[in-house]
Amino acid sequence: MFDPPDNVPAEELASRIAKLQGALAASDVDAALILPPADLYYFAGTVQDAFLVVSREGEALFLVRRSFERATQESSLCRILPLETSKDVPAILRREGLGPFRRLGLALDLFPVLTGNRIAQLFPDAELVDISAAIRQIRAVKSPWEVELIRKAAAIQDRMVQRAIQVLREGMLEVELAAEVEAEGRRLGHTGIMRYRRFGQETFFGQIMAGPSAAAPCYLEAPTGGPGLGPALGNGAGWRRIATHEPILFDMPGAWAGYISDQARTLSIGTLGEEWVKAYDAVVGIREEALARLRPGNAAGEVYEAARAGAARLGYGDFFMNHGKAQVRYVGHGVGIEVDELPALARGVRMTLEPGMVVAVEPKIVFPGRGAVGLEDTFLVTDGGPEPLTFTRRDLIIIE
Amino acid sequence: MFDPPDNVPAEELASRIAKLQGALAASDVDAALILPPADLYYFAGTVQDAFLVVSREGEALFLVRRSFERATQESSLCRILPLETSKDVPAILRREGLGPFRRLGLALDLFPVLTGNRIAQLFPDAELVDISAAIRQIRAVKSPWEVELIRKAAAIQDRMVQRAIQVLREGMLEVELAAEVEAEGRRLGHTGIMRYRRFGQETFFGQIMAGPSAAAPCYLEAPTGGPGLGPALGNGAGWRRIATHEPILFDMPGAWAGYISDQARTLSIGTLGEEWVKAYDAVVGIREEALARLRPGNAAGEVYEAARAGAARLGYGDFFMNHGKAQVRYVGHGVGIEVDELPALARGVRMTLEPGMVVAVEPKIVFPGRGAVGLEDTFLVTDGGPEPLTFTRRDLIIIE
Repeated sequence: MFDPPDNVPAEELASRIAKLQGALAASDVDAALILPPADLYYFAGTVQDAFLVVSREGEALFLVRRSFERATQESSLCRILPLETSKDVPAILRREGLGPFRRLGLALDLFPVLTGNRIAQLFPDAELVDISAAIRQIRAVKSPWEVELIRKAAAIQDRMVQRAIQVLREGMLEVELAAEVEAEGRRLGHTGIMRYRRFGQETFFGQIMAGPSAAAPCYLEAPTGGPGLGPALGNGAGWRRIATHEPILFDMPGAWAGYISDQARTLSIGTLGEEWVKAYDAVVGIREEALARLRPGNAAGEVYEAARAGAARLGYGDFFMNHGKAQVRYVGHGVGIEVDELPALARGVRMTLEPGMVVAVEPKIVFPGRGAVGLEDTFLVTDGGPEPLTFTRRDLIIIE
Repeated sequence: MFDPPDNVPAEELASRIAKLQGALAASDVDAALILPPADLYYFAGTVQDAFLVVSREGEALFLVRRSFERATQESSLCRILPLETSKDVPAILRREGLGPFRRLGLALDLFPVLTGNRIAQLFPDAELVDISAAIRQIRAVKSPWEVELIRKAAAIQDRMVQRAIQVLREGMLEVELAAEVEAEGRRLGHTGIMRYRRFGQETFFGQIMAGPSAAAPCYLEAPTGGPGLGPALGNGAGWRRIATHEPILFDMPGAWAGYISDQARTLSIGTLGEEWVKAYDAVVGIREEALARLRPGNAAGEVYEAARAGAARLGYGDFFMNHGKAQVRYVGHGVGIEVDELPALARGVRMTLEPGMVVAVEPKIVFPGRGAVGLEDTFLVTDGGPEPLTFTRRDLIIIE
């Protein structure tokens, strides 16, 4: 469908690094050390066993242990040097005229303690400070180049829904449907991996949940999760045989060049009962309330409050985004290289919406023990209002 | 093919926790706090948003924020309590007669610094110590129950190779072949997710690498990795169109109930040139040298040394496990819930092999710029010698 993705352009990296340098200056941090895969991909344009050193001024320095050759092929950065061992980092920095650093910034939400300790030993005079909030804030606003990648992810995702419509049959296991849909995505170049920022959250590809599966209690910080294939990974498509006349919550992300598009649709083999149809209408209504607030200048939390109020007004307050203790207090979240980027469209979040942010809005109504209906799309925040990047038909998809 | 996996039996959990308690006593640690998904699955039998508290004596206490209901369904532990917020942990422990703890053990190779800081605030009088080595050592020796799960993973994996033989065609993209093979695994209940212990290592499903793809430089600490689909995740199946008469290194792990089996085969459409056939014969010879040392009482490093010496004697020393700077100094690794479990069959590793350890042995010969041949199986270490758990035909698989 698409040609292989291009390298991240030099001007993209330059603009991202300039923003990071601004954040470092604002928080009195001398330099950032970037190691986690998602952040390396964003700031260096490639994932390697490497250190990206961004000081407040000047060009970033990319020190690559493995693979230097690959880094030079994939990264548009100019200053790339081979690294034998991490112990050499301080000497190389001195030689390159960088440092000494008093305050060194790391994404401490991702760095394991032992890795942090090793870095502290390399820089005994530096204070290690957390810059994850700044990195996440920068990443929240996407460039037009990034938005195009998400559009491609959305195109793959649409084909995945079409494939589901084609192959869905009564008695099929959820995971059998997942197999067909995942394969369709992969044939088109779906990156596969789903990166989470939050520690302990994991998923494989996405969720296909038929009937009560969508109401199964789940550890994910999400309205639904599904039972999955068992205790080893308790979310995602599972062993349920899909029956007729039950809602199938189909929440299978697209991905292209590592960028995720998040979209959910509700399918059914044969018609759904009136109760489900009414709930789906309510989901559509709640979504409109949310989208009306999805505008630059508003706080992200306002989008959630509008959705919550809409759900209450329509009589679904107790079942909006799950029920009882399982109810979550958000209606959407940023997406990009990670599934859980900023901003969270969540209770109390004051982060201001800006043009270029990309968020998934996912109103869902969950009836305990019985199932769920939902509708999720990924939107670009613009001055003219939310622009959908995902585009599959938005009605209840009834397969006869 | 198989019925859904059972919960982890109570006696499994009890035996694992008893080993952990022994390790705590031996290292003067008062209690362990378990949070990472892989470790929770192992010691609690389920992955939740939860704290598993294992003190040196007595029953483990499982405090579950989300989902308590699911935890009680999946975990065979007896002492499971709901948790509102992590702030309540110290008070609950006092009420339950646990603590105070002077030295608190965490797997600091996985805990992010910020998570570690939050735990330090909960236990201001405790010293946080790393117990990841002890956890990994315990997990290295599998129970017969665990070995059965790996056998099931191997059965799925065999079907994945059969599927490849069925669908492989000249001109197919590597990722198109991956799509078909992954789908075959998923239809049979393959868990999908591939957990790594080592920070920064990630993969999606596995690797299919045709011709020069298998020699592409890669950041993974592995002999091969492949270019992948682009800079976002630079390993795995990629965009190469598979040609005739080139070796296809097919390294797609099986997984069942979260347990991984690792097996690699070399395929080709049409015959391979003599140079490749000879290299494959050498791989078989190197493997025999390695397996002769894979016995209880030997150091894990001896297996590597035997393989390396075999490769040198056969004239492939420079190309064994890749070439030049990309050459890695191991011939295998433990597998289980993670792809990179102990023991590493690597240079200088003194860890003693024990019955019940499960290791993948993966001799590979890589010709720079051209490709690779290899043969990998997963073995159970027994007193009677290595027992293969993976079982697909081991010849060069030539598809006419």
